[in-house]
Amino acid sequence: MNSASLPALLYWLDLFSVAVIAASGALSASRKEMDIGGFALIGVVTGIGGGTVRDLVLGYSPVFWVERPEYLGICLAVSVAVFFLAPYVGQRWKWLLWADAIGLGLYTVVGADKALAMGASGLIAAGTGVITATFGGVIRDVLCAEIPLILRKEIYATAAAAGATVYVLLHAAGIGYIVGLAIAGGLTFGIRAVAIVWSLSLPAYKSRAGRPF
Amino acid sequence: MNSASLPALLYWLDLFSVAVIAASGALSASRKEMDIGGFALIGVVTGIGGGTVRDLVLGYSPVFWVERPEYLGICLAVSVAVFFLAPYVGQRWKWLLWADAIGLGLYTVVGADKALAMGASGLIAAGTGVITATFGGVIRDVLCAEIPLILRKEIYATAAAAGATVYVLLHAAGIGYIVGLAIAGGLTFGIRAVAIVWSLSLPAYKSRAGRPF
Amino acid sequence: MNSASLPALLYWLDLFSVAVIAASGALSASRKEMDIGGFALIGVVTGIGGGTVRDLVLGYSPVFWVERPEYLGICLAVSVAVFFLAPYVGQRWKWLLWADAIGLGLYTVVGADKALAMGASGLIAAGTGVITATFGGVIRDVLCAEIPLILRKEIYATAAAAGATVYVLLHAAGIGYIVGLAIAGGLTFGIRAVAIVWSLSLPAYKSRAGRPF
Repeated sequence: MNSASLPALLYWLDLFSVAVIAASGALSASRKEMDIGGFALIGVVTGIGGGTVRDLVLGYSPVFWVERPEYLGICLAVSVAVFFLAPYVGQRWKWLLWADAIGLGLYTVVGADKALAMGASGLIAAGTGVITATFGGVIRDVLCAEIPLILRKEIYATAAAAGATVYVLLHAAGIGYIVGLAIAGGLTFGIRAVAIVWSLSLPAYKSRAGRPF
Repeated sequence: MNSASLPALLYWLDLFSVAVIAASGALSASRKEMDIGGFALIGVVTGIGGGTVRDLVLGYSPVFWVERPEYLGICLAVSVAVFFLAPYVGQRWKWLLWADAIGLGLYTVVGADKALAMGASGLIAAGTGVITATFGGVIRDVLCAEIPLILRKEIYATAAAAGATVYVLLHAAGIGYIVGLAIAGGLTFGIRAVAIVWSLSLPAYKSRAGRPF
Repeated sequence: MNSASLPALLYWLDLFSVAVIAASGALSASRKEMDIGGFALIGVVTGIGGGTVRDLVLGYSPVFWVERPEYLGICLAVSVAVFFLAPYVGQRWKWLLWADAIGLGLYTVVGADKALAMGASGLIAAGTGVITATFGGVIRDVLCAEIPLILRKEIYATAAAAGATVYVLLHAAGIGYIVGLAIAGGLTFGIRAVAIVWSLSLPAYKSRAGRPF
């Protein structure tokens, strides 16, 4: 790959991850049998919600999608496509889980990298990675009155935290974006994938038996 | 109407729509039998929530009500008034629905127009119109642990999207604010009104029978 | 106390209140039996959520914890500590209530003071005091799918409103931060404490009997 095609690749990867996460939002809307306007709203909020919160706290103004309307456009297009195509797709809950996992991996790295590019410290970059990766889904679940995925005890925020931390360390070691994305994003996705496939969970906090709380 | 009275009219219309939406929040608080502090918090958040999110994503800083405390003041006054007067008002659920519909029409245009005034593209302006119109109510419903109105399958976000799109087109055609507000805001309110009166809904997404999801 | 130690005291008080509120978030996560990643996410969001919303609406950019990573660090440390220690602590629900009450008092004053320092009017400062004090807990409760504390009819937002108003008045009268914090923060905590101990509530809005709504 030559150096000219690299930024283009990153741009398309970024658009792809927004599309995937928007699709997870629209799939969630399909579970609630919303109309096409509801699909579009949930798809957009899910797709750009995490990055919006990231840009707001970092002081990146206006937020990314105001200057690049194609992000809003792709969320709308994906939401409409899901509205018409979802009935023909079986096992949509599984698709939602996997779309969410892919987006988790991509957004974790995108979010951490943007903070580093803006001069934030490593801890903050890891934090904005987790925020970017998890908040779109959190807003989606809250709007759809679902119990947030992060509450379902499967490894979720933990996967994003691990991936974001690894990306920050790779960045500090001078590793470039593409390799860092492949390793840290792949790690995040991998941890989440293992958790989905084997319904794995970290040892959760347990109240002692016989306690009222 | 002469040109000097026009900005004043817009200002009062804006304050009026904030008051109406704050009232819808306070009516929602009355359903939950909150105390007066809860009324004020929900009334304020509902009244200025959508515009706050709009200003944040557009990078309009500080948000509108920080520089114009009267917006906060009117939300508080309306919330307190509803607290004392609501018991004497019958059919409050219907009032809430209609107050919400009026605010939906006004906020859609206000939100789209502010984005255009700040130089955003048409797609973004339509998006911020929908955000401004729907997010106050969404936050209200989330805080009150109600199922968000946008989930109730009646035409809601779709009405705002239609009105915002029409306003952007009118603006591109050189139509002024007042006429655009009357047409696009009226359209949004009209679509919503029809949906309320006839319990109309768009064809919602339907899962096929016999499917677990 | 000499003048050099004063800013240091304020800094430690601020860190302390963030730690206390983060602990209330982690205690909430323990009720939901989340894993350690969930604890950290909820602890962080609760600890810095209110101040983040305050900074966003005031246009303080980037938000406070981006430039001071120790706020994020202390939230993480407290969350991890609660994860391992909470099983050995009895009556955690009570601890959560009291940690929340202490944070309510501190955050109310911190939030109002920051707005005044940035030149906002008294009404806005009182408003941001209430926002800072209540929004972390609101986000915590929404993420944990609990009914928000502000809905539980006990005096909550009202305590913050009273304290914030008193602080603004003391500030206008030329009273310094430490004394203002002691009086207004103590008032907020005191009102909330009375409400907790005697399960006191303000006269809540009551629907008339026999009404469908």
